[in-house]
Amino acid sequence: MKSRAAVAFEPGKALEIVEVDVQDPKAHEVMVKIDFTSVCHTDIYTLSGDDPSAKFPCILGHEATGTVYKVGPDVTDFSVGDKVVPLWKPECGQCEYCKKGLNFCSAIADTQGEGVMPDGTSRFSYQGETIYHFMGTSTFSEYTVLADISLAKIPEDAPQDKVALLGCGVTTGMGAVKNDAKFQPGSSAAVFGVGTLGLAAIQMLKRLDAKEIIAVDINDDKEAMAREAGATHFINSSKLDQPVQDYIIECTDGGVDYSFVCVGHVDTMNAGLEATHKGWGQSVIMGVAAGQEKISTRPFQLITGREWKGSSFGGVQGRSGLPKVIADYQAGKIDLEPFISHHLAFEDINEAIRLQEAGQSLRDILSFEEVNNA
Amino acid sequence: MKSRAAVAFEPGKALEIVEVDVQDPKAHEVMVKIDFTSVCHTDIYTLSGDDPSAKFPCILGHEATGTVYKVGPDVTDFSVGDKVVPLWKPECGQCEYCKKGLNFCSAIADTQGEGVMPDGTSRFSYQGETIYHFMGTSTFSEYTVLADISLAKIPEDAPQDKVALLGCGVTTGMGAVKNDAKFQPGSSAAVFGVGTLGLAAIQMLKRLDAKEIIAVDINDDKEAMAREAGATHFINSSKLDQPVQDYIIECTDGGVDYSFVCVGHVDTMNAGLEATHKGWGQSVIMGVAAGQEKISTRPFQLITGREWKGSSFGGVQGRSGLPKVIADYQAGKIDLEPFISHHLAFEDINEAIRLQEAGQSLRDILSFEEVNNA
Repeated sequence: MKSRAAVAFEPGKALEIVEVDVQDPKAHEVMVKIDFTSVCHTDIYTLSGDDPSAKFPCILGHEATGTVYKVGPDVTDFSVGDKVVPLWKPECGQCEYCKKGLNFCSAIADTQGEGVMPDGTSRFSYQGETIYHFMGTSTFSEYTVLADISLAKIPEDAPQDKVALLGCGVTTGMGAVKNDAKFQPGSSAAVFGVGTLGLAAIQMLKRLDAKEIIAVDINDDKEAMAREAGATHFINSSKLDQPVQDYIIECTDGGVDYSFVCVGHVDTMNAGLEATHKGWGQSVIMGVAAGQEKISTRPFQLITGREWKGSSFGGVQGRSGLPKVIADYQAGKIDLEPFISHHLAFEDINEAIRLQEAGQSLRDILSFEEVNNA
Repeated sequence: MKSRAAVAFEPGKALEIVEVDVQDPKAHEVMVKIDFTSVCHTDIYTLSGDDPSAKFPCILGHEATGTVYKVGPDVTDFSVGDKVVPLWKPECGQCEYCKKGLNFCSAIADTQGEGVMPDGTSRFSYQGETIYHFMGTSTFSEYTVLADISLAKIPEDAPQDKVALLGCGVTTGMGAVKNDAKFQPGSSAAVFGVGTLGLAAIQMLKRLDAKEIIAVDINDDKEAMAREAGATHFINSSKLDQPVQDYIIECTDGGVDYSFVCVGHVDTMNAGLEATHKGWGQSVIMGVAAGQEKISTRPFQLITGREWKGSSFGGVQGRSGLPKVIADYQAGKIDLEPFISHHLAFEDINEAIRLQEAGQSLRDILSFEEVNNA
């Protein structure tokens, strides 16, 4: 069947909205009509061409909500009409990762990385040419096909234009604090980068009664939203005449208990570790860095009691864990409004990318129906 | 009073055995007659001149046992004749680290780092010239003065010529596994560097029922002692035609659960992290690296679930924790024999350093009394 889609034909070029062909779902696959999608930094990173594993042409997009449109053979968990969030991290429940409660499911990792479905082929084409999938989700197409293990069912009454954001960035920032760092109430934290991940981390830190939340960014415009979310301090690191880690160590009498690095720059990741306290400091990195760049520090930093770790999708297993995150949202524990900068039509996707790259949007919700720009 | 001591007059030169002057202990200080001492890598590292914080001339040494010879005013925990192990990591019980159960006591850290006693002066001199302390212990002197928080009392019946080794290396290697990594029985591990720390780590891994213990060294002579201690595999990394981490990942179907890096080379520390399994791998570094060298890896290694941490004295708080380690030894849970290469006279200390640098000794026990070379 035909579907509107924003295709990344070449790295570094704008997306082109065309009508692609979408094949029916095969065994254990589900066709989803995407209702709302947003753009995440990883989409922009891949489009830039900096991601060496990217395959073009492809359909990007991995933060969305949709409705099950058609199910392939052997699909038992989903029916037409179910509301779903696509999962770029599937959960098979059977592999060694899933069994340990870790969200690194290996069931379809190889084919997902290759931009194809588990049978090794793509469901997308344009004028007879194969279009690759991306992150197993490709939500920049009105109709997309996913493995059934790459979908989380969500309640009928969950507002789809909001919870789309829980498919990546917000869940990642919040989960890094709660699940990966296992943040202890009453502790202090620094959050580097006040984008969607950073703001989500700050929101969770406030929820967990952090005694001090230091937001760090290079853009003064971020201060208001950081404080709104719960930051107690804001540092514009570009205006300091010393390394930000040294400044934080001075201000906090030795460093913060935790740091969360929500940007893709390795220098900031290094600063994040070094801004934590000797003896017990813990730094969690989340950003995707360019190709071969490396984080680095003197081993002394670890020998003296700091821990360096990472977080991916906030440690949340999608099928079993995301419904709990959505329940938290529905119970009022998560505020998604601050993350939504604009409501745009899907056709405005290149504008959404521009706004986000310029730091003028956190997230724009793109609708496949007509919308009034809010 | 006079004391035989091996003085490091200059970096890069052999120690000189001379008779130094030792002042009486001041308040909260204890004079200890060292009975047995051994040489640890950190002594050799500092003597080399690579340690930018070292102060010369000084009296090195921090792995020893002794007998309390004289106590200064206000010392309540020790009496003349008590058997003790000097602690290069003091434990005041009052600072923020001690209270959290962490062995980074800050009470006398500044002066210890400066090579002086807590009042800012040295108790050692030679021909009127100040000789600096080292690590707060200076066990390469027959009589030495320590802060009372830098001493652990040990049982009368603990063999002093054995438990001297628990003052640094053996406790570090074992504690890194048990306390810092919190090694889970049945897991797999790689140990990089089969020296005292590595051998101690292997011994603890065996005690904790590791399912696979891969010892890595560049010297084939280490294989026998590694296997004796419990290693199930031995890799001579210098003979591989690929990076050792890639080889370990291949052999173990994805990497080891834990790695322990017991050498001071940053490349090996990087390999140690990268040899651990995606999703849950944990790497603990222990070695002291030269001045400004840095560990480095792609952030992807952490984002995909690995943790990087360090260990210092095995996470053991000296005064409260070391007696338990000694009790483990006395209960037969720790075998110290494999670590003792020779019994030498204190006068042979430069030979002990040579043997250790050449990889011909793990530890030589130096006695201030006459000994028969074993």
